[in-house]
Amino acid sequence: MVQYIAPLDTSFAALSDPTRRGVLEQLGRSDASITDLAERFHMTLTGMKKHVSVLEGAGFVTTQKVGRVRTCRLGRRKMAEEAAWIEQYQQLWAARFEALDEIVEDLKQREISHERDTK
Amino acid sequence: MVQYIAPLDTSFAALSDPTRRGVLEQLGRSDASITDLAERFHMTLTGMKKHVSVLEGAGFVTTQKVGRVRTCRLGRRKMAEEAAWIEQYQQLWAARFEALDEIVEDLKQREISHERDTK
Repeated sequence: MVQYIAPLDTSFAALSDPTRRGVLEQLGRSDASITDLAERFHMTLTGMKKHVSVLEGAGFVTTQKVGRVRTCRLGRRKMAEEAAWIEQYQQLWAARFEALDEIVEDLKQREISHERDTK
Repeated sequence: MVQYIAPLDTSFAALSDPTRRGVLEQLGRSDASITDLAERFHMTLTGMKKHVSVLEGAGFVTTQKVGRVRTCRLGRRKMAEEAAWIEQYQQLWAARFEALDEIVEDLKQREISHERDTK
């Protein structure tokens, strides 16, 4: 099976809306039709269809139409790339602030020994 | 110190652009001026200023102007909320797919015992 992996641009953009994050949380509990979701999020069908289509584009949701009802469920994308990017950033971030802390610590030590020497 | 915590909307939107993610990775290695960043990412100063301002708005970057040079460095926001949201989603996701796998397994078992009974 060839699976299309949406780039981080598409997935982070999909996550930048509170309704879309809410829809993912909802589908994490149970599948739902577009109508269910529109009602739950106090939205028009057209508005909800747009949100679902963004989530589908990012690979987070799949939909299936049976008769007149389109059912939405979670897609196979587990946000592994998104989690990995953030984790890698957090490592860089921690290293960067540790390095700064060391510089500050070093300056403090120099100040202390300077004070001692000039006493 | 009162620190403004940008909501997930702003931060995920900030992460939805490859240049902005690149700038964060770059600042994770060393501080840089807007001019450095514009050069490195083959961009106009105006274009880079806009990107930096989005990152600043999300709390990921702070800038300081000394003379004519504006230096950018990583902000104090470690993306903890973003990582937490994704992790929580991954747990929901895993539980959802496990539940589906169990249903499929159950159906298979019923089919096997049905076949056995009708032989």
